[in-house]
Amino acid sequence: TSSETSSPVKESPSDSESGYETLEVSTKNNITKIVLNRPKMKNAINVKMYEEIMEALEKAAKDDSVITVLTGNGDYYCSGNDLNNFANISGGEIKEMADKAGELLKNFVNHFIDFPKPLIAVVNGPAVGISVTVLGLFDVVYATDRATFHTPFSNLGQSPEGCSSYMFPKIMGLAKATEMLLFNKKLTAAEACSLGLVTEVFPDNTFQKEVWARLKAYASLPRNSLAISKRLLRSMEKEKLHEVNSQECKILKERWVSDECMSAVMSFLQKKSKL
Amino acid sequence: TSSETSSPVKESPSDSESGYETLEVSTKNNITKIVLNRPKMKNAINVKMYEEIMEALEKAAKDDSVITVLTGNGDYYCSGNDLNNFANISGGEIKEMADKAGELLKNFVNHFIDFPKPLIAVVNGPAVGISVTVLGLFDVVYATDRATFHTPFSNLGQSPEGCSSYMFPKIMGLAKATEMLLFNKKLTAAEACSLGLVTEVFPDNTFQKEVWARLKAYASLPRNSLAISKRLLRSMEKEKLHEVNSQECKILKERWVSDECMSAVMSFLQKKSKL
Amino acid sequence: TSSETSSPVKESPSDSESGYETLEVSTKNNITKIVLNRPKMKNAINVKMYEEIMEALEKAAKDDSVITVLTGNGDYYCSGNDLNNFANISGGEIKEMADKAGELLKNFVNHFIDFPKPLIAVVNGPAVGISVTVLGLFDVVYATDRATFHTPFSNLGQSPEGCSSYMFPKIMGLAKATEMLLFNKKLTAAEACSLGLVTEVFPDNTFQKEVWARLKAYASLPRNSLAISKRLLRSMEKEKLHEVNSQECKILKERWVSDECMSAVMSFLQKKSKL
Repeated sequence: TSSETSSPVKESPSDSESGYETLEVSTKNNITKIVLNRPKMKNAINVKMYEEIMEALEKAAKDDSVITVLTGNGDYYCSGNDLNNFANISGGEIKEMADKAGELLKNFVNHFIDFPKPLIAVVNGPAVGISVTVLGLFDVVYATDRATFHTPFSNLGQSPEGCSSYMFPKIMGLAKATEMLLFNKKLTAAEACSLGLVTEVFPDNTFQKEVWARLKAYASLPRNSLAISKRLLRSMEKEKLHEVNSQECKILKERWVSDECMSAVMSFLQKKSKL
Repeated sequence: TSSETSSPVKESPSDSESGYETLEVSTKNNITKIVLNRPKMKNAINVKMYEEIMEALEKAAKDDSVITVLTGNGDYYCSGNDLNNFANISGGEIKEMADKAGELLKNFVNHFIDFPKPLIAVVNGPAVGISVTVLGLFDVVYATDRATFHTPFSNLGQSPEGCSSYMFPKIMGLAKATEMLLFNKKLTAAEACSLGLVTEVFPDNTFQKEVWARLKAYASLPRNSLAISKRLLRSMEKEKLHEVNSQECKILKERWVSDECMSAVMSFLQKKSKL
Repeated sequence: TSSETSSPVKESPSDSESGYETLEVSTKNNITKIVLNRPKMKNAINVKMYEEIMEALEKAAKDDSVITVLTGNGDYYCSGNDLNNFANISGGEIKEMADKAGELLKNFVNHFIDFPKPLIAVVNGPAVGISVTVLGLFDVVYATDRATFHTPFSNLGQSPEGCSSYMFPKIMGLAKATEMLLFNKKLTAAEACSLGLVTEVFPDNTFQKEVWARLKAYASLPRNSLAISKRLLRSMEKEKLHEVNSQECKILKERWVSDECMSAVMSFLQKKSKL
């Protein structure tokens, strides 16, 4: 079986470009595939992975692929921001670290806003936090029925990012978006599909096969037509999305240095370390 | 049983702040609860109630509650604008009264646009007119399965308000919003939920219990995180919503002095008085 | 039976204004009805029909009808742009023809953006291409359960028009709109209704009867209230829609002279001529 129809876990290393520590990246049949590859950490995004995803997106934008796919290795799609990014910060450094993290996040999200080709998420399992919020910047989102979508920001004293404060109300209406972004409601794949965040849900046992057959067909369509059409659908929003991203990151930097956020995160990490 | 889990009808007077004629307002467990309290009039909004709701929202914005809830006492959530507001107007006063009513309405809707904390509607029964149109300015809308949503503007020769001309097409698309706002389609709770106007529908016999258990949990989340996140979700729209509100009220003032509207309202009141 | 409740195919010619080659147009009971009337060509829109639809819309805007309805004669609603519009172009004329076609399309779509009364689509069968994309500019869309909605632009090396690049993501979210506009997904009537592109779906055998009964009731509502409310719902978007339309037509002109599009269209026409 080809690598496209098998599970990403079995991805042969020979298909991958070398040089990534946290990703597997390969290009075949006009498709560039970026696989989050920290399965033991449920594909949590640490600083290295933020940087490598940006690098992979920059290369995919310029390579000869027609579409680009982001997916995860193992049971999870992505468990969100690696909270260990917060763990080793001492008091005096907080402000400086928050500023750095905010710039990293803004830069990261900008790569999704500006990506010039059709960008497709293949959500192979649960998705959390930033991996959910940026889904509004993808063009198509396919999900296994095992996937869930969870953005527990207020639990951690934080606030929404990834342009979700603008895109989620636009996609699903404020009455649904607020329950998710403020009140931590976790969506099933079927719920996310019904609300328009997900394009289509597939049974887990045929997920990879069905999705990759479809993606292969998409990748054989006229490439310029696809890229130009994608940019057309995005053109009216692009400036606004950059403005939203800046505003979200500015507010998150203030959140991160607040007592409310610090104590919520510390409490979470302590509970976790006791398990 | 606590007042939060019992029906609002049984609300103990000792929980209420004094001084309201048409509302019951209380604050407990970080929740400020504003109850429309003209059950014999199906909670129709007369001039006094417009003014008292604005006063209650102003106080809730400044008090130490985390979330604010609006609900109705009795079988109805709210039957909309009290048409008796129109009943005693003599010919010479029409223009002046329309201007006054337009200013009152604009001011009323502005209080919802600008409300700084999560605002939640607990729709305990049928909702009509202005009580439906402002739902697009709430953050979460929970409804009993007995609720219906009806905006019969064109029947009365009028036009949409409460920012519904902008928010409803955004929430449900124009094909659905037009049937509701121009052609008087009455939605069931399930339909309103499927279209994104309502967050979730509950069986009537467990409605109060389930909703208040959930709201109590929400009210214990980090308060600044919630308020800041709400304002973030609204920030891109706020200026536009004020513009929409002004435009809607300007057009309604013209409608109210038109022969078409006057004869439609008079015909409605005559039919009603014959029953 | 009256003409409103019978199938459009049986429309008595005596109801029609004379002078149209590709349409039947009639006004009765406050309803102006524009029927696409090339049933043997599945109501494909040739240059003549583009011009006649614009003329009919201009007249309907000024006549004494309350609502205007567009529907198709025969089994199809409309099979989209008549590709024979492209067939007889020789090499040297391509650029000039693309400019002309782009101006025609822009003018055509502007007539839908600017139409001042409630505009209702009665989708009596399959809809393709431009007849689908302009549906986002209608106020209400009723469909038989036999209807399908298909926009195979990238198959033909083209890009979306009819303001669909802006309206479809607004109506259904980008995750659904992209699959339709970039990846040629054909929607059933039920799917289109669930995504908000269609207001309501009716069983084919009662479609005409149920829809025309409803439209007759709508057409008896206060006319100014309807027209003013429609313009209110559109007012915030109108400038943006004109901008979108211009941008879409500019990009399509570039597409039409591209090798990618030319070879895709030629390949399609050759396959068709071999059948």
